[in-house]
Amino acid sequence: MNFETTLRVRYAETDKMGYVYYGNYAMYYEVGRVDMLRQMGTSYRQLEESGVMMPVVHMECNYKRPAKYDDLLTIKTEVLHFTGTRVEFKYEVSNESGQLLNIGRTTLVFIDSETYKPCKSPDWFTELILTHFPMN
Amino acid sequence: MNFETTLRVRYAETDKMGYVYYGNYAMYYEVGRVDMLRQMGTSYRQLEESGVMMPVVHMECNYKRPAKYDDLLTIKTEVLHFTGTRVEFKYEVSNESGQLLNIGRTTLVFIDSETYKPCKSPDWFTELILTHFPMN
Amino acid sequence: MNFETTLRVRYAETDKMGYVYYGNYAMYYEVGRVDMLRQMGTSYRQLEESGVMMPVVHMECNYKRPAKYDDLLTIKTEVLHFTGTRVEFKYEVSNESGQLLNIGRTTLVFIDSETYKPCKSPDWFTELILTHFPMN
Amino acid sequence: MNFETTLRVRYAETDKMGYVYYGNYAMYYEVGRVDMLRQMGTSYRQLEESGVMMPVVHMECNYKRPAKYDDLLTIKTEVLHFTGTRVEFKYEVSNESGQLLNIGRTTLVFIDSETYKPCKSPDWFTELILTHFPMN
Repeated sequence: MNFETTLRVRYAETDKMGYVYYGNYAMYYEVGRVDMLRQMGTSYRQLEESGVMMPVVHMECNYKRPAKYDDLLTIKTEVLHFTGTRVEFKYEVSNESGQLLNIGRTTLVFIDSETYKPCKSPDWFTELILTHFPMN
Repeated sequence: MNFETTLRVRYAETDKMGYVYYGNYAMYYEVGRVDMLRQMGTSYRQLEESGVMMPVVHMECNYKRPAKYDDLLTIKTEVLHFTGTRVEFKYEVSNESGQLLNIGRTTLVFIDSETYKPCKSPDWFTELILTHFPMN
Repeated sequence: MNFETTLRVRYAETDKMGYVYYGNYAMYYEVGRVDMLRQMGTSYRQLEESGVMMPVVHMECNYKRPAKYDDLLTIKTEVLHFTGTRVEFKYEVSNESGQLLNIGRTTLVFIDSETYKPCKSPDWFTELILTHFPMN
Repeated sequence: MNFETTLRVRYAETDKMGYVYYGNYAMYYEVGRVDMLRQMGTSYRQLEESGVMMPVVHMECNYKRPAKYDDLLTIKTEVLHFTGTRVEFKYEVSNESGQLLNIGRTTLVFIDSETYKPCKSPDWFTELILTHFPMN
């Protein structure tokens, strides 16, 4: 199952090479996964308000073609793995011509906002993820 | 009295025009004023740890010449006004050739970190600022 | 005459105060004015491709209330002044509750992309702006 | 052989979690590798001026501990692989207490600035890298 969101490349996000700065894809991944949660009926803000934070512990980015200023990008997000204590997301970024520009993966863990210790995914969140991405 | 700090322009801070993106000067001003406090013997972190935050309520930027990638910039910072509840800083950004590139001003207020209400400058901070920038 | 666009605050745009970093409003203004041009039937990219760049020479920002993570912001953009060689834009940023958070103004000039010298606004661009914002 | 550079975490680089936003490490890696070139007696700017650009084609980041506001970070940079058409860098980011916070790797390729096609590393650059990082 896939979720898609679109965003337009800002001038601020380009660099003197004329393309999107390579560090900005992490932000695009954020937009993709946050919008996936919204499309599922919740939000990352809601998760944080329930006392859980999800820091990123690993990221991998493959840059295939450059994204350019003013490009309307589509970010396709999916959950690759879910263990109850960590989630691995995959992102595919493509442009309006359908060209695949970038593929990324991030692993996030659950942290208790008060103790700053690792914790388990809240039950409602686990159920939500597994409904859309049944793991085997 | 003036305080100076230097920084080198990062690729991430440029845009496709080949210059520093106009929104990034606010960050350079931050570097200037934070380093001024450090040179005075304190730090903005210390101020926050004492229970006070200083959000910006006003900013003005004049862009005279563009800063370029890899330029070594000097930021000259001074306090223009101090009233006990707000501080106005002025910044002059120049390059290695001594060319003046940018002039900015920001006004910051004091906020109690717990109540999120405006408050007065801590006495020790007031004294520190007035020692270096006596107001008349 | 006014033009409106919306954007959602990204985690990347917040700072440890929990609000949008004060330097990021310049980027929001960019989104507002670029989207205004698109709503008028052109784009800033098209302007650049015709050989003209529009660097910012002045900016002023008034921070009234903080924007928070995940807020859906509305940016209302208008042209205050147009002289044929420079344009002054005004921006009003508000949240979903209709609270006015931030007011900004930027002045941009026209630069020839080849000579890097100031130039006049292309006729078609002048006409487009004056159609929507008749100056007296 | 290792090269080290230091930088101080800016408020702009933190997010509402109170730590450095995960996407900003790419920028820290940039600072590390650019400073490595400077310590070798050249600069990335010089490389670009000679007609070669080095876009990133792959990045991997491991987040071990969070970097905090105002932390003085050390970035240790080394070249892991060099083939004449691509370079793999490794970065270790640690704080003043010597705690290892982040490990990253990026692969960059050589692109001709005029044709935008892949090219070989300029001879002088190859020699410079191999002098400091002899490959076997």
